[in-house]
Amino acid sequence: MGSLDSNPASLDAFAADAEGFQPLNADDVRSYLHKSVDFIYDYYKSVESLPVLPGVEPGYLRRLLQSAPPSAAAPFDIAIKEIRDAVVPGMTHWASPNFFAFFPATNSAATIAGELIASAMNTVGFTWQANPAATEMEALALDWLAHLLRLPESFMTMNRTAGGASAQGTGGGVILGTTSEAMLVTLVAARDAALHRMGSNGVVGITRLTVYAADQTHSTFFKACRLAGFDPANIRSIPTGADTDYGLDPARLIEVMQADVDAGLVPTYICVTVGTTSSNAVDPIGAVADVTAQFGTWVHVDAAYAGSACICPEFRHHLDGVERVDSVSVSPHKWLMTCLDCTCLWVRDAHRLTDSLETNPEYLKNDVTDSGAVTDLKDMQVGVGRRFRGLKLWMVMRTYGATKLQERIRSDVAMAKVFEDSVRADGRFEVIVPRNFALVCFRIKPGVAMEEKDAERANHELMERLNRSGKMYLAHTVIGGKFVLRFAVGSSLQEERHVRSAWDLIRETTTEIMEGKMRVHVCTDCSDMFLQILDLE
Amino acid sequence: MGSLDSNPASLDAFAADAEGFQPLNADDVRSYLHKSVDFIYDYYKSVESLPVLPGVEPGYLRRLLQSAPPSAAAPFDIAIKEIRDAVVPGMTHWASPNFFAFFPATNSAATIAGELIASAMNTVGFTWQANPAATEMEALALDWLAHLLRLPESFMTMNRTAGGASAQGTGGGVILGTTSEAMLVTLVAARDAALHRMGSNGVVGITRLTVYAADQTHSTFFKACRLAGFDPANIRSIPTGADTDYGLDPARLIEVMQADVDAGLVPTYICVTVGTTSSNAVDPIGAVADVTAQFGTWVHVDAAYAGSACICPEFRHHLDGVERVDSVSVSPHKWLMTCLDCTCLWVRDAHRLTDSLETNPEYLKNDVTDSGAVTDLKDMQVGVGRRFRGLKLWMVMRTYGATKLQERIRSDVAMAKVFEDSVRADGRFEVIVPRNFALVCFRIKPGVAMEEKDAERANHELMERLNRSGKMYLAHTVIGGKFVLRFAVGSSLQEERHVRSAWDLIRETTTEIMEGKMRVHVCTDCSDMFLQILDLE
Repeated sequence: MGSLDSNPASLDAFAADAEGFQPLNADDVRSYLHKSVDFIYDYYKSVESLPVLPGVEPGYLRRLLQSAPPSAAAPFDIAIKEIRDAVVPGMTHWASPNFFAFFPATNSAATIAGELIASAMNTVGFTWQANPAATEMEALALDWLAHLLRLPESFMTMNRTAGGASAQGTGGGVILGTTSEAMLVTLVAARDAALHRMGSNGVVGITRLTVYAADQTHSTFFKACRLAGFDPANIRSIPTGADTDYGLDPARLIEVMQADVDAGLVPTYICVTVGTTSSNAVDPIGAVADVTAQFGTWVHVDAAYAGSACICPEFRHHLDGVERVDSVSVSPHKWLMTCLDCTCLWVRDAHRLTDSLETNPEYLKNDVTDSGAVTDLKDMQVGVGRRFRGLKLWMVMRTYGATKLQERIRSDVAMAKVFEDSVRADGRFEVIVPRNFALVCFRIKPGVAMEEKDAERANHELMERLNRSGKMYLAHTVIGGKFVLRFAVGSSLQEERHVRSAWDLIRETTTEIMEGKMRVHVCTDCSDMFLQILDLE
Repeated sequence: MGSLDSNPASLDAFAADAEGFQPLNADDVRSYLHKSVDFIYDYYKSVESLPVLPGVEPGYLRRLLQSAPPSAAAPFDIAIKEIRDAVVPGMTHWASPNFFAFFPATNSAATIAGELIASAMNTVGFTWQANPAATEMEALALDWLAHLLRLPESFMTMNRTAGGASAQGTGGGVILGTTSEAMLVTLVAARDAALHRMGSNGVVGITRLTVYAADQTHSTFFKACRLAGFDPANIRSIPTGADTDYGLDPARLIEVMQADVDAGLVPTYICVTVGTTSSNAVDPIGAVADVTAQFGTWVHVDAAYAGSACICPEFRHHLDGVERVDSVSVSPHKWLMTCLDCTCLWVRDAHRLTDSLETNPEYLKNDVTDSGAVTDLKDMQVGVGRRFRGLKLWMVMRTYGATKLQERIRSDVAMAKVFEDSVRADGRFEVIVPRNFALVCFRIKPGVAMEEKDAERANHELMERLNRSGKMYLAHTVIGGKFVLRFAVGSSLQEERHVRSAWDLIRETTTEIMEGKMRVHVCTDCSDMFLQILDLE
């Protein structure tokens, strides 16, 4: 490479065409975006008829697209064509109204527009100075959502004073990419505070710190604990059961915490979930806050999915007690019509986060930061760089208003109830846990003629057939040792007819399985008679 | 709230209008996006004339927008109007061609289109099954970029075999949000591997682990180490100096590492930077790999900014030795015309990451994952959820091709050289470190008539005046104790005329400062004569 000159004397060597390559030419931007909008319009119009789960094999994309990057430029239409021909057929269509798996990634016209504008502006708001509008919009959007959720003012950036004016509070918020990051940064803050209280300047003593969560808590919590350096032996998973509908039992919690304290350990952090991923169980926030207060444990509320429902007064009670916790996270990218990614984290004392997460490199120093009048959002997250995430969340609230958002939550819940009622009305099925929000956990139930083991096989088979059909997609979980189907309502193109069609398909497929594929089996040991499922692949 | 019913008997209660609220109605999507495209077009056409740094005070946005969220819906035009009237005037315009601060966030028509389509599809590809196309597109885009960078095949997901066919390798990659996350996940993998080698099942022994980086390394590295639980006392910042152009000196490194080993500590991880944020210094990858091999230390290369330049053969030598490191990260959102956020992380052995980061909750289990034929990308990052980030990176390479991307890098470097030559030709200035890429670090130089202290004041004043003018924005740093101005070329709307205008403004402002605001000062102690800067506010 000795002959290559990385410092040519003039620009002319590279300006092959008159103006050179202008990646952000406004006319190109408009043209490419108009083509993309056309693609999106067609996609939304057709996604209902596409298989929800694609029938592709691992490695399929390499067989359709070129394996090495091209040297030459290509018309933008080529990329769009390859997306149509190669990407779409290999997608799991979360936008499909027949998507009932996981939690839906709800979306809206306003939020996509907000994200588009943010992508075009493409600012990096690590400090207030690096983008005052983005920093302030993020705080405003978080305060707005806190209002809708009726979070205590202590979590807001701006409090209202008695006279009606507003004043900077001690609380604060930040928009992160995932709940996992919200857990990680609060875990680190709690860890450092606990170590500090123990007189440790570094991490000496970290092996004495303990963390807690119900066994229904998302696995990412246990991963976040390990990322933050907590000892795996000190991560307590508190067993739950049907007696509390799989919510955390404060009596069990205090037993475990007290035993740890008696053993010289330091209860540092507990994660409380409102709406677990598996079954939408709700841990009792207030009772946990009561139990843990004596230990000085950081209480975090993970309301990633169900938090959004709490903008409706009839669901708000699930957050009761939140005024006594240290931090709360809610992901509007799940159920508040905000496209990925958008996890809101509020902390009651912003300084407890920034104490652990602050950096102060010379090249980011500026007078406004030095004045202490602003919070630089890089000091409340893992990274430095950050997109203008507040815009798309603000645009959802600004455009739809609280009423429409509540209407949509209620409509989703009502559709889930339609489904639940259908399940309960069919004697072959059972609803496994009470439905709290828009997730129904159900299964073909075992009975006199079907053992538990066969029921598991039948439910497995039902899920496989439904998902293979391309006509719908649902997921499963295990609750109390039982294999259970999860039917999550709320995908943003979903209407009641999709829920009813899905139920019809479930019913019919179950009939096929149960009628066509069973035989009477007489046990050679006990002589009892069972129905046995046959030919399940 | 006892009177509120969260389980109404029918949907009718909520379907006030015939169809209810349809947040993703295709016609609304098209209409909102067309309005957004018009806004973006106008923005790009006018951004050149907007003040790069806004003259707003903290709290400005609350005075312009309503403090509480609205109940009622509003036409989409209202949001656009408020963005025009309240957001734009408070923005630091990273898209402005007069932006020379930090590193530019380069952008392009193709990538914005890719991000838009991804936002509309809004899939969450945590597992392969949850979106095969997104998972495979991410691996393909990473392999393409690895090709452009001529990374060894050991970092790629698919290797070419001797016969020309391809086969799954042990390497792998993932697209993350920030370099910080890339550092964090590799730090955790290195930490766990070191602990495991020490016979520790948990984190007992973590206080013996040491990590290393040159003192010019981004502050976020030291933060990532603390997040991962490394003891602050064990985080080594190796001093650099002008003798190595502020690159890491391997001789110093081995001294420090050997001393640690002699003290019973365990060198676990070193971060090598190609193109530091402060001054674009380059640590010698190969020499560091040689030094650390004997200790089994994980070597990570952070080429966040300058990595993109290495798609040009004349810059590729900066990555020499990369075949002997464990992981590399490059952020195309800095200099490869890809909008935020997009940090590419490659690891030579993907299992070393997934061993630490894997989770396996019941509700994500599926046959394809169980088969081992795929990597679920959630196991290579902090969180679970993830956007379809591969699309926008792939679209950049697909649409522009290697040649155009190289052309743009070279054009940016050539423009930086134009600026550098201008600085060198003006006797009042000096270039502080050799320019490696498109960043020029310079200052008004002290001389016989200006003490170091006065030079610092003059440079401070110059920066303040330039940035306050709204006509340009540059940042500063401190190198070798000197206050230095950073002039970073490459913002995607930038042309040579903007660089030349900026230089003219710098020249003229310097003249104003030096001619209008100095007086001769005779020191009462030494009787020497100095120029003193006056009235700098």
